[in-house]
Amino acid sequence: MTPTPEKIDLLIEARWIATVETDAILHNHAVAVRGGRILDILPAAEARQRYQATEQHRLEQHILIPGLINLHTHAAMTLLRGIADDKPLMEWLQRHIWPAEGALVSAPFVLDGTRLACAEMLRGGITCFNDMYFFPEAAAQAATEFGMRAALGITTLEFPGNYASDADDYIAKGLAAREACRDNPLLSFCLAPHAPYTVSDRTFQRIATLAEQLDLPIHCHIHETRQEVADSLQQHGQRPLARLQALAQLGPGFIGVHAVHLDDSEIRLLADAGCSIAHCPTSNLKLASGIARIAEMDAAGINIGLGTDGAASNNRLDMFGEMRLAALLAKGSSGDAAALPAARALRMATLNGAKALGLDAITGSIARGKQADLCAVSLAELECQPCYDPLSHLIHVAGREQVSHVWAAGNCLLEHKTLRLGKEFRLDASAALWQNKAEVCTGKAHAP
Amino acid sequence: MTPTPEKIDLLIEARWIATVETDAILHNHAVAVRGGRILDILPAAEARQRYQATEQHRLEQHILIPGLINLHTHAAMTLLRGIADDKPLMEWLQRHIWPAEGALVSAPFVLDGTRLACAEMLRGGITCFNDMYFFPEAAAQAATEFGMRAALGITTLEFPGNYASDADDYIAKGLAAREACRDNPLLSFCLAPHAPYTVSDRTFQRIATLAEQLDLPIHCHIHETRQEVADSLQQHGQRPLARLQALAQLGPGFIGVHAVHLDDSEIRLLADAGCSIAHCPTSNLKLASGIARIAEMDAAGINIGLGTDGAASNNRLDMFGEMRLAALLAKGSSGDAAALPAARALRMATLNGAKALGLDAITGSIARGKQADLCAVSLAELECQPCYDPLSHLIHVAGREQVSHVWAAGNCLLEHKTLRLGKEFRLDASAALWQNKAEVCTGKAHAP
Ligand SMILES: [Zn+2]
Ligand SMILES: [Zn+2]
Repeated sequence: MTPTPEKIDLLIEARWIATVETDAILHNHAVAVRGGRILDILPAAEARQRYQATEQHRLEQHILIPGLINLHTHAAMTLLRGIADDKPLMEWLQRHIWPAEGALVSAPFVLDGTRLACAEMLRGGITCFNDMYFFPEAAAQAATEFGMRAALGITTLEFPGNYASDADDYIAKGLAAREACRDNPLLSFCLAPHAPYTVSDRTFQRIATLAEQLDLPIHCHIHETRQEVADSLQQHGQRPLARLQALAQLGPGFIGVHAVHLDDSEIRLLADAGCSIAHCPTSNLKLASGIARIAEMDAAGINIGLGTDGAASNNRLDMFGEMRLAALLAKGSSGDAAALPAARALRMATLNGAKALGLDAITGSIARGKQADLCAVSLAELECQPCYDPLSHLIHVAGREQVSHVWAAGNCLLEHKTLRLGKEFRLDASAALWQNKAEVCTGKAHAP
Repeated sequence: MTPTPEKIDLLIEARWIATVETDAILHNHAVAVRGGRILDILPAAEARQRYQATEQHRLEQHILIPGLINLHTHAAMTLLRGIADDKPLMEWLQRHIWPAEGALVSAPFVLDGTRLACAEMLRGGITCFNDMYFFPEAAAQAATEFGMRAALGITTLEFPGNYASDADDYIAKGLAAREACRDNPLLSFCLAPHAPYTVSDRTFQRIATLAEQLDLPIHCHIHETRQEVADSLQQHGQRPLARLQALAQLGPGFIGVHAVHLDDSEIRLLADAGCSIAHCPTSNLKLASGIARIAEMDAAGINIGLGTDGAASNNRLDMFGEMRLAALLAKGSSGDAAALPAARALRMATLNGAKALGLDAITGSIARGKQADLCAVSLAELECQPCYDPLSHLIHVAGREQVSHVWAAGNCLLEHKTLRLGKEFRLDASAALWQNKAEVCTGKAHAP
């Protein structure tokens, strides 16, 4: 006598599952989901007996992985994608990015840009992103419309911009946005002091106090360029990380973005303090910042996640590209072909990102009780044949174009490569509109 | 009175055309093709008046570029794609690649593997590849079946293998294959001494003589690893390039593959001799060989093309990936964000490759009188929005999955992302068959 099957919301069978809880691959298993959470992970044949699901998927040539976590981006900058490439860094910033931002950045810009970013990220298997930009309530609206998980920045700089007048105003507005989003379980917030060179000691001290009071992570660019380190030595008499340590920023909640130029003692400092790093390899190369010492940081035990950075310096919000490049650079720059194996690159793009954001109890791996944030990648294409090792193919062969399905909190957001949204967004038209405005304001002739 | 339109075979209108003859982009132009050759490049509106084409394409959101040229591959190694990743180099070669090759390499293996490679390359916009492998007549058959242009290696090593017994036997077999392919205008040959560490002085001397007599390029791995340079110093008392210079290999027909470890005098030597380099950035990182000094070689005037290397060390035959990585690494390793701009990366992947192969009079750019080797890339996807600069998008945003159409010698080989072949190949089934054989012979358990 077979027992009555249990009713659940979602059952996904896949040829391969990389849970990221361990490095082992499950073959022909299934994930059972109820109420947005993972209820069970079991052999597919058994799952069919035990569960009766409202929504069911048989992914016969796919690998199911946790939804990818983009640990550093400026999502709305999609609207400035490729506006000024192949330029030296300061010219890029001063003559192109800052003037364009000065003319355009507004709540509607952030809403449209983050919508475009969400669409791109979802199509590439990303279910959660850590954003640092202005007007976080507009970014929150976009993430919510697309059903994505997001950690939004309480972005803070000293100087005035379109969004806020000074550091206290930035913080006040960020905290108000956090308050307004309190009821959305997919949204969380990070304190986001932009960088050591744009934030004062006094503001960092306020941020340390807020981080402790509100139990929030601190998300900050650090040691991106040689120049940043040299300038800090001149201005503050110490390297940026030493200054941040003195200002009580460094701890398990600290997410240092880039960390390209670290000496050995700084790697030990970050490891001892339990900090996380958001490694953005494409951005670091494209802006000629250098190559972060990932193999050494990993060996030292630093929690390393991966980020795309903004689309103005990448120009893809593509975590498959970042996983592959991180693995390749770790090998190429360490001289060890065994450095950063495929399973470790996937862990960086998932569980390590969740850990950095303090979200590892609810996402980042496929485990009972966690939220069902999932991504299915087809390995059926001829470009993936033959397949000796699905995990190696995931990193070194597959592209984001092979992502077929995405779920966040159990909701199917991408099905057979098509976004499932409640609403039509006309992303192309809004991108064209903002492009036109950007070209007018930067004096760039509009191409016919 | 309008004149009667001229009858032609093919007219392709595109929103943007990058001819690579100059770095300028043509807007709303058309390419007219007759008898496989480019007859005209002119404004689209004018083209519709002047020509009446049998085959016509209006590519309204596409950039048309020359067919990409993969300047270094071992095409048939697709069948070993990812067989042993994340292993140190010598373990990778000695315990995995060589045993698998020893057990499998044969004319049927090369035929099936090269077919799979051709399908992958065509879908990624590659119309011409420079191959170094065994059984070149089997590779020639595959290239011909797929309508691709190929430069096939008269591959030469000292030690015996499944294909030949000694260096003279390798050369004899390669020359016989060349003779057998004499009537195929899409095929050419290169002398392909494998590397300084696998080829003797005597054989290099024979190759120099043959290169001169037969007017053939020489395609050879050089200075790939530090170890190779150190071993040569110990064994020959000189670095590999000095030895090759003494053995009369270096000249305008020399294509040095990798060239990762060069000192300043070696860069000058290659420039002065008019040599070409096949830069394979993914392979160099993946095997932990290092980063070639491309910005400096380019500044010295060396002709640099791009290659994927074989699928066992990449694991994609993807020239979009190589263009992007070459551009990123040149910036990141030189510290100059303006290094290797997009137009230059495209030139490396097209005209420079043709020049290295001695084929620049017939392919590598979109110019009157050249063969119509063309690739259309759609920039319509939301991942490409907005588009300030189509050339920057081609390198930094687009992926090979956006290639929509490919022509070689005027024949449409890929149309709306679908291969147009005269015959069905069952590439998946043959890949699975060879995978099974490889797993049996390397003692790897077959996953369920
Ligand atoms: Zn950033
Ligand atoms: Zn090679």
